Amino acid sequence: MRWLKFTASGQTSWGIVEGDGVVGVEGDPFGEWRRTERSYPLDGVRIEVPLIPRTFYCVGLNYLTHLKEAANKRGEVPNIPDRPEIGYRAQNALIAHDEDVVIPADATEKIHYEGELVVVIGKKVKHLTEHDAMSCVFGYTIGNDVSERTWQKADRGLWRAKNADTFKPMGPWIETEADPDKMETIVRLNGRQTIRFRTGDMIFGIVPFIVELTKYFTLWPGDVIWMGTDGASPDLKAGDVVEIEITGIGTLRNRFVTENR
Amino acid sequence: MRWLKFTASGQTSWGIVEGDGVVGVEGDPFGEWRRTERSYPLDGVRIEVPLIPRTFYCVGLNYLTHLKEAANKRGEVPNIPDRPEIGYRAQNALIAHDEDVVIPADATEKIHYEGELVVVIGKKVKHLTEHDAMSCVFGYTIGNDVSERTWQKADRGLWRAKNADTFKPMGPWIETEADPDKMETIVRLNGRQTIRFRTGDMIFGIVPFIVELTKYFTLWPGDVIWMGTDGASPDLKAGDVVEIEITGIGTLRNRFVTENR
Repeated sequence: MRWLKFTASGQTSWGIVEGDGVVGVEGDPFGEWRRTERSYPLDGVRIEVPLIPRTFYCVGLNYLTHLKEAANKRGEVPNIPDRPEIGYRAQNALIAHDEDVVIPADATEKIHYEGELVVVIGKKVKHLTEHDAMSCVFGYTIGNDVSERTWQKADRGLWRAKNADTFKPMGPWIETEADPDKMETIVRLNGRQTIRFRTGDMIFGIVPFIVELTKYFTLWPGDVIWMGTDGASPDLKAGDVVEIEITGIGTLRNRFVTENR
Repeated sequence: MRWLKFTASGQTSWGIVEGDGVVGVEGDPFGEWRRTERSYPLDGVRIEVPLIPRTFYCVGLNYLTHLKEAANKRGEVPNIPDRPEIGYRAQNALIAHDEDVVIPADATEKIHYEGELVVVIGKKVKHLTEHDAMSCVFGYTIGNDVSERTWQKADRGLWRAKNADTFKPMGPWIETEADPDKMETIVRLNGRQTIRFRTGDMIFGIVPFIVELTKYFTLWPGDVIWMGTDGASPDLKAGDVVEIEITGIGTLRNRFVTENR
């Protein structure tokens, strides 16, 4: 099932994508809901951010190629994580499919994309085991962990580098039936493929992350875990359009523009 | 005015503290609200976390004594920040006044408190100047930035060290009339004062943080900024009770217990 948060006829609600259309739903997928009589063509609605997570988790270095390239740029030996550790991103930065990423006026030209699988949590859980870890996963969506690499070197806690307004496109919808082991992540810049990798080739997969996280943290419905990216990005500039496709989920598309101040 | 989130007679709502009582309110302080006929003695209600912020901002090193003691412990020369930089905490960790801080089963004995002033944002704003920065401040509350120092040395992004469940007591209420320049922060361990400092003695104050933050981030109603702490803490153990008083606001009190697994 494909859950879309959308606005049509001035009303924002959840809906279920079916073919080229969306059926409006009362309630929300994490609680009680029922289908309504409202239905719209998909290309006639405004797609919204699927949700604002209560806590916004994000995995830093979780693919080997990305890790090695980042280390090489710093002139260091790659330091492969020996345990799954989590970070955070800021909710203010979230935008929807087709909304513009606004490059801050004082950013450098080192603006990069990072195409990521996003795990959406569906239940309040703690202390999950390897056996039942996946029971809390509601579905999957796509994230673009936009990064300003010059700030990334200087910022404490990556505060601007990863979290400036609009730096976290997420969407277009949440797919509940997808299988991460079969997914491929494909990034296109202005229509041309720049990278393609097996989404499941993570250093630590979804299960070990959920097991380790829930030793210490309660996960809540609507929490998200961004699972990291592979490869590297060219420098992006105003006018560029980045599409991140994850097979079995869909495509997240955003244009980059410059802040007008 | 003193805004309290509380539960009484099975109903959770906002209220206004007046003397030893609280008057129930319909709506919320960031939007429309009106007083109701419901009123209760303060000691007869359950105090809740004032709010779950959309984004949970936290300043790391913002007082000189704390900075110097942290550097000394690492055998390093204190590196005084030359600009206001922000970090994040995780919403899962928030608990209310009088709720227990649960020390995780595998934590070390290095459990510390950090008494902090919390700025509560009341308006959606961006690009504020030194002149109008304070216009977005709704009021103030108190935070205890509980930290596991052994994990703090090892964790990437302080994930468990600062963000394990229950590590972020906040409350008891939001005071809208207080003046940070006149406040003192007083910490008591089991009733005995362990530290007292002028709350306003920050390396960077509230105004420069809001100016710098809003260059890049939209602040939303209910966002919070924890402003950092001064001094150091002894190691805490199960049974300890930590009270953090900030004059003009009130006192946040929490007991520490051990996780029972």
